[in-house]
Amino acid sequence: MALEDPVSLAAHAALARRYRSAAPERILWNDTIAALLDHRTVRGFRPDPLSPDLVPTLVAAAQSAATSSNLQLWSVVAIEDEEKRKELARLAGGQKHIEHAPLILLFVADLARAELVADEARAPKEGFEYLESFTVAAVDAALAAQNAVIAAQSLGLGTVYIGALRNHPEEVAKLAGLPPRAAVVFGLVVGWSDATRPAAIKPRLPQSVVLHREVYDLAGQSAAISEYDRDARAFQEEQGQDPVGWRALVLARGASAAALNGRDRLKAALRALGFGLK
Amino acid sequence: MALEDPVSLAAHAALARRYRSAAPERILWNDTIAALLDHRTVRGFRPDPLSPDLVPTLVAAAQSAATSSNLQLWSVVAIEDEEKRKELARLAGGQKHIEHAPLILLFVADLARAELVADEARAPKEGFEYLESFTVAAVDAALAAQNAVIAAQSLGLGTVYIGALRNHPEEVAKLAGLPPRAAVVFGLVVGWSDATRPAAIKPRLPQSVVLHREVYDLAGQSAAISEYDRDARAFQEEQGQDPVGWRALVLARGASAAALNGRDRLKAALRALGFGLK
Repeated sequence: MALEDPVSLAAHAALARRYRSAAPERILWNDTIAALLDHRTVRGFRPDPLSPDLVPTLVAAAQSAATSSNLQLWSVVAIEDEEKRKELARLAGGQKHIEHAPLILLFVADLARAELVADEARAPKEGFEYLESFTVAAVDAALAAQNAVIAAQSLGLGTVYIGALRNHPEEVAKLAGLPPRAAVVFGLVVGWSDATRPAAIKPRLPQSVVLHREVYDLAGQSAAISEYDRDARAFQEEQGQDPVGWRALVLARGASAAALNGRDRLKAALRALGFGLK
Repeated sequence: MALEDPVSLAAHAALARRYRSAAPERILWNDTIAALLDHRTVRGFRPDPLSPDLVPTLVAAAQSAATSSNLQLWSVVAIEDEEKRKELARLAGGQKHIEHAPLILLFVADLARAELVADEARAPKEGFEYLESFTVAAVDAALAAQNAVIAAQSLGLGTVYIGALRNHPEEVAKLAGLPPRAAVVFGLVVGWSDATRPAAIKPRLPQSVVLHREVYDLAGQSAAISEYDRDARAFQEEQGQDPVGWRALVLARGASAAALNGRDRLKAALRALGFGLK
């Protein structure tokens, strides 16, 4: 890419927004890659209604993602009801955007459907009793959800994932009417961005930290992480947040079981919901 | 969408390929959604080399996906070495496409970097000892990987996920030189499709089975699953596969621990690799 090439200029600008001081020098470029790099998490939404065709569109995109052995061990519960959204906002630790946006998609790790198929055939279902099956279901739900995010963004909509629904898995499952052996892995809020609360592109760790060639290298990451810490601090200041840097976020999460806001109970909660997790 | 509208015709055709007899009547439509719906898993690759700019491009796309609390608990090990690809093909149960394509990206659930940060600060790291942290890492790796898939597809490349690397987590971790508290969740093979072995669009479950409005419904799924079973059988026949349908795939996976090809050991393997999974 020559720097005077407009494509190259756009790519450089996108990389500088995403990586700040540690941007890769060159990447391949097209409209899809431009859109992917431009992703930002939206937390300020207008209450404006969505097209009635939106949910089927997002689900068609989601179902078009790969799924392990075509087992399709995931489902979506689309919640538009205002009272339910208020309750989900509360269960997620007071995340008001769940209340403000008109739609939240609950992505479900779903072994219930597979067990229904087994039960109807009076067949054994031991294979679903393992941590592997929960892992497949959670990963497949994530692949599907990310396709929904890309589709929503292409339509001009904003999204934010809600992992905090795992703070209260049983209550969320009850609200969504889930049968045994199904659990919400995360939510995805979808709506029109509020232009008065614009979302920013969050800088990420340098590629030298995340990408390894042939062999993983841990020792070499520390200096680049420190460099990133400075970029993270600058970003936090721009956003009016406490400029604690990135290392501080990691330390806060690792500090104790209490730092998980109830998610230290995830295993017990999944077991209560009928997952074997052997 | 009026049916005579060419956009509408394209959307209908895409929905018919993805859903066969149970296609939704209408969806929103643009080039991005068209590309998402056109996804197909590629298993026939040409050995042709890839651009040296490809891996940084895919990783930039991957890092632009959302990540829980910006913790970035995932990494990629890019494997191009032919001997290593042969060994990975063997570990994945003889999946020759890993050997034939020039690149496999190993997506790593990575608590090692977070623990490095904690160790350097002499800080506690109890928060990472829970199933929650593995779940976050696996989900974030999946969100990232799916962005890489979309980017690769936009460049005309084919991909296939390799979940079977979980058949032998310790051996795969060793091959990739992973430190403790890191594990490969899945691989992603990337390469140029072999036009003599074209990939087909696999039909998915009807939306009435996967998408629920406000409340999940299990009892209503059975009839639509049977309808899908017919479409799945037709697809398998077209592909020269044994036309067993979809229910049979589910029953095979559920049949026994042995049906998991070693993945019934996933919990033990992750523990051996240093994950707490409390």
